[in-house]
Amino acid sequence: MMPRKPNLRLGLDVGGTQVKMALVGPTGKIFDLRTVNTEKNPGALARALGEAVRSWAPRGLRGTGVGVAGDVDGDRGVVRFAPNLGWKNVPLAELLKREKLPAPLIVENDANAAAWGAHRVELKGVCRNVVALTLGTGVGGGLVLEGRMYRGACGSAGELGHMVVESQGVPCACGNRGCLEAYAGGVSLVRWARREYRRRGDTPGPLTPKILADRARAGDRVARAAWRRYSFYLGIGLSNLINLFNPEALVLTGGLAQGAPLFLPGALREMKRRAFTAPVRAVRVHVAKDSATLGVVGAALLVP
Amino acid sequence: MMPRKPNLRLGLDVGGTQVKMALVGPTGKIFDLRTVNTEKNPGALARALGEAVRSWAPRGLRGTGVGVAGDVDGDRGVVRFAPNLGWKNVPLAELLKREKLPAPLIVENDANAAAWGAHRVELKGVCRNVVALTLGTGVGGGLVLEGRMYRGACGSAGELGHMVVESQGVPCACGNRGCLEAYAGGVSLVRWARREYRRRGDTPGPLTPKILADRARAGDRVARAAWRRYSFYLGIGLSNLINLFNPEALVLTGGLAQGAPLFLPGALREMKRRAFTAPVRAVRVHVAKDSATLGVVGAALLVP
Repeated sequence: MMPRKPNLRLGLDVGGTQVKMALVGPTGKIFDLRTVNTEKNPGALARALGEAVRSWAPRGLRGTGVGVAGDVDGDRGVVRFAPNLGWKNVPLAELLKREKLPAPLIVENDANAAAWGAHRVELKGVCRNVVALTLGTGVGGGLVLEGRMYRGACGSAGELGHMVVESQGVPCACGNRGCLEAYAGGVSLVRWARREYRRRGDTPGPLTPKILADRARAGDRVARAAWRRYSFYLGIGLSNLINLFNPEALVLTGGLAQGAPLFLPGALREMKRRAFTAPVRAVRVHVAKDSATLGVVGAALLVP
Repeated sequence: MMPRKPNLRLGLDVGGTQVKMALVGPTGKIFDLRTVNTEKNPGALARALGEAVRSWAPRGLRGTGVGVAGDVDGDRGVVRFAPNLGWKNVPLAELLKREKLPAPLIVENDANAAAWGAHRVELKGVCRNVVALTLGTGVGGGLVLEGRMYRGACGSAGELGHMVVESQGVPCACGNRGCLEAYAGGVSLVRWARREYRRRGDTPGPLTPKILADRARAGDRVARAAWRRYSFYLGIGLSNLINLFNPEALVLTGGLAQGAPLFLPGALREMKRRAFTAPVRAVRVHVAKDSATLGVVGAALLVP
């Protein structure tokens, strides 16, 4: 039921295929959640969102927070680069303002929005310093430092998937080599497993992280090795983040985080073997409960 | 000349062999600088410092900032671990208070203090987000984020030398493997060069980073290869820091920073090849001018 004085924010999470829209209360409760298909033309998307919001959302919302999978200049509300959407320098805040979406209008990288959601909702705001890793097809990241969203000089901070962990390693989608994402991204996991099956003369059939998880649980050797390798690199990533940020919490979110029982124990062992003692003692590693909606909720809660 | 209303802070930089003491003005100007030998017994060191300060420093100082090479719990003023000094859980603030050093008394990791000095003095406070790398025998680091010293959950943040850049790399003094320090520390540079000379059947004689720099300038092949390797890994480190922190400035300090003309061009090439475009454009890489006193000045300026 909608509260009488709603105090609601509108959250949008713009992904490559769908946009999630949610009405979110001050503590992160979702009062209504809908999805619309993503139009790749930015103007058409803005119009579709404007229409959808006008026909659906109540009046008097406190503002709109938008998470977008891409490199975002939050100060100007511009999406500098979003490869999944084919966008370059899209003035998204401007386009959505024309469609009269509730102001103020905040545009943020989707992994940053998820980090903010993790900080505010999953951890109830008690941890001042939160590092969030989004484990999906790639590896995203967001930083909440001293209780605030940390964006850096131009909004690009927190590209945690793009720290190099092998100097001459596997090529990464970003153009670099040896990035964490090239080992702990879902695409990389599947690619490695497929190669390994073939090397052994097996025909693996269609592979996804989910299929590899099921096979690993059933004892399949290649699948188990693929997740061991995933754990190893994730553990190195966590250890680096601990030595750099000394956070109160490390949050794992994204589609692959559900599979944590499979890979997290190994990752934590590797992390503890490598990171400094004091900050390892100070950190809690938390697997997000509501990964799927953390981004849209976090985006909404970025509205002050 | 001492100003009439001094508004001075006392800075101390506690190293393995010497303690630097300085009277520092509000903009970082040093009015007097002395050194005393480091007593490894913490009580004896505190007494020696108390005596030195009483016989030397004027009255009415605003407070004392202390930088220590080690893992520091700033909230409690405790040095948790300082391998060079052989200290474990030394209540340094308490010991110095007993000696009546000017209060408030702030204890901080020395690389953090140097980062604060770089932010306040070298960059004149104009950069909100500053990542400082201390290039010496090891690789230290300090973070100034959103204009404030970033310490993390328990004061251990900013161990930039201990991010892994080779998953199965060279053992590091910290117990981990493949840390940036194991490639871009002075000790590691010398060790690699010595091995390389021997592998070629040469007797290298005594080696230091300075000697290797002189030889590289004179065209020595091994020395040049050693610095090329150093550049490569430093470039990876810088690239990682840019993708994580998106800082306005990256500052290089420490004894090896003077040799920047030798290794920085290569490091910047590697950095630009790897890091994301927008944050690379936003960053300036700055070599500290006064590396030797940045720590003691930064420590003093941590006093509010």
